[in-house]
Amino acid sequence: MAEVELKTSRGTTERVREAENPHSLVAHFGADKPLKLDAGVDLSPFQIAYQTYGTLNAGRTNAILICHALTGDQHVNNVHPLTGKPGWWDIMIGSGKLIDTDRYFVICSNVVGGCMGSTGPSSIDPKTGEPWGLSFPVVTIRDMVRAQAMLIDHLGIDTLFAVVGGSMGGMQVLQWAASYPERMFAALPIACATRHSAQNIAFHEVGRQAVMADPEWRGGRYLVEGTAPRRGLAVARMAAHITYLSDAALHRKFGRKFQDRNSATFSFDADFEVESYLRHQGSSFVERFDANSYLYLTRAMDYFDLAADYDGVLAHAFRGTKTRFCVVSFTSDWLFPTVESRAIVHALNAGSARVSFAEITTDKGHDAFLLDEPELFAIMRGFLGAASAARGLR
Amino acid sequence: MAEVELKTSRGTTERVREAENPHSLVAHFGADKPLKLDAGVDLSPFQIAYQTYGTLNAGRTNAILICHALTGDQHVNNVHPLTGKPGWWDIMIGSGKLIDTDRYFVICSNVVGGCMGSTGPSSIDPKTGEPWGLSFPVVTIRDMVRAQAMLIDHLGIDTLFAVVGGSMGGMQVLQWAASYPERMFAALPIACATRHSAQNIAFHEVGRQAVMADPEWRGGRYLVEGTAPRRGLAVARMAAHITYLSDAALHRKFGRKFQDRNSATFSFDADFEVESYLRHQGSSFVERFDANSYLYLTRAMDYFDLAADYDGVLAHAFRGTKTRFCVVSFTSDWLFPTVESRAIVHALNAGSARVSFAEITTDKGHDAFLLDEPELFAIMRGFLGAASAARGLR
Repeated sequence: MAEVELKTSRGTTERVREAENPHSLVAHFGADKPLKLDAGVDLSPFQIAYQTYGTLNAGRTNAILICHALTGDQHVNNVHPLTGKPGWWDIMIGSGKLIDTDRYFVICSNVVGGCMGSTGPSSIDPKTGEPWGLSFPVVTIRDMVRAQAMLIDHLGIDTLFAVVGGSMGGMQVLQWAASYPERMFAALPIACATRHSAQNIAFHEVGRQAVMADPEWRGGRYLVEGTAPRRGLAVARMAAHITYLSDAALHRKFGRKFQDRNSATFSFDADFEVESYLRHQGSSFVERFDANSYLYLTRAMDYFDLAADYDGVLAHAFRGTKTRFCVVSFTSDWLFPTVESRAIVHALNAGSARVSFAEITTDKGHDAFLLDEPELFAIMRGFLGAASAARGLR
Repeated sequence: MAEVELKTSRGTTERVREAENPHSLVAHFGADKPLKLDAGVDLSPFQIAYQTYGTLNAGRTNAILICHALTGDQHVNNVHPLTGKPGWWDIMIGSGKLIDTDRYFVICSNVVGGCMGSTGPSSIDPKTGEPWGLSFPVVTIRDMVRAQAMLIDHLGIDTLFAVVGGSMGGMQVLQWAASYPERMFAALPIACATRHSAQNIAFHEVGRQAVMADPEWRGGRYLVEGTAPRRGLAVARMAAHITYLSDAALHRKFGRKFQDRNSATFSFDADFEVESYLRHQGSSFVERFDANSYLYLTRAMDYFDLAADYDGVLAHAFRGTKTRFCVVSFTSDWLFPTVESRAIVHALNAGSARVSFAEITTDKGHDAFLLDEPELFAIMRGFLGAASAARGLR
């Protein structure tokens, strides 16, 4: 790690420390192992922060890679070092749980471009001794997956039993299927798509503009200048958060209920519960996430267009695959509606791949994949059980 | 108008001038005619800016009131004084057009709380000689309609032939039906609802937070301090604009097409056409709209809940009405989906009101009511023609 003297504000030191020396395992890749980015540059040196749970078996055949979503991280099954909250998929992973850490070796790494210990815009650029900021190269979903494959090499694992993820994590699963079909036995892309829609790009652009409109953003140099674009990032999170839920879920949870009062105050206070809830989502997010990482990761999702890498023919991305797929969507997910999952299934069918597909009826919206959704658990349990038997795992 | 010395920035003087001495007809209401607001205060003096087109007949029976939407104004059928663009509903209104100014006397007034000449937060508070800013009282849809009724009195019109509006304009139509049923012969609420949903309140709250996060907003005192929260208001507009379109319309118009280039730039430039389009929507909006008015008018929509004024029974809002209704929704409108219009129709049916209902198949989303939508025109032409005959208009 470069020795640097930084101007700091509250949180700035902590942010850079978590980027450089995270509360995680770290794989370092030196000058001999650059990450060859789609943008045409080599990122070197770089590091990937990751967590593991359970034990790799002797045959090295029981590893499951979990890919996290836009604002997730590697702390999938342990207390988060910054927030003190449980892992983001504790409901799914653990001893005796669906992804059983008594049976599987579970790996989750922070994506490149992230802010929890994998190299990203809040990491120190060794050439300047300052955080990269906007001089960090733009990364893609394929770059993230390339880095994950290097991590898997580093761990001495040839073939993953499964790659699992929702939302941006699901995009990574699909990219794994295209880039490294021989290195994954089973794939579980949930609530995702092979390309980001115009509406989704539009929502991301609103979020980026909100961050960049905050004068504390300082052209991306806020870590150097000791500021923090908290209000802009909070607005970005609020806008995005609406898209993670459904109209029905918001109606069920909040309706038009007033917050701690019986009638309108005729003011701009958070009169309605839904306003108060959104403000909380915004303000808590900025405590744990880096604004520039938010720009980079939304950009990576915008750029994702798997078919475009195969002359516009999605089926060619999966040609000859032997991987077993289980594709899952949710009826009330309007960010990645079922039609997107059907397109994945059709492309897999075109290549006679092994694929099962489930559209789960729920009013919980896109975030259903993170929640207690019994039908999702039942489907995943069945799929992983069958794949596990086929793979010869006990 | 109070004589005031203001610190000014580019646009500030013009903004206050348009609020006080607009390019419009103005009805002044003095101390004897206060506007009694739902917030429990009297607004006095106040003024309403309005435009008229066509000629009031001798019987004073051919007047149509057009109610504008959130970011609309009274310039429905003439060149806009600030933007130089055609009236926002030129496609619908004019000599020989659907709402024929050779037959009807068309009135459109700026809503109270607006920024184009009706009293609002950018008007001068006579008590201080400064723009009201956030000391302006919070107004409601009912307050807007109350002010319109006073304008109609001022014009010597007892009963309107029709009240017509989409979106927030449709909310005003519904409020007219509840507040002044005997003063309107026909009502055309388009793409609206009797209450704002939790999701819609959430989107409005994001917009307000974006405005208030802009340090140039200065706690709402930007007109006094000579600043302008342009970036915050632009972000608010961008977020809202997505909700006015449909996913399908965005896909058809933009898809994932790049802007003036063939491939990704791996940067945060507006790579995609949809980003460039949104940025333009944001930056052009701030040239013509006042940030505080945006706060007040979104708040008015949030507070709208017609049934709540009638013990939660929507049908009671329309009890005994003799008005003829034509309710219109659009299949791809996810801001005010058809289910909201059906609720209006059911409430009207419960009281045996005369009501026709059309759900128009279109992929253009909420903004379809402003666009060239032949089926909408055909339905409105039929409804207004029949109502016109029933009213005994030639």
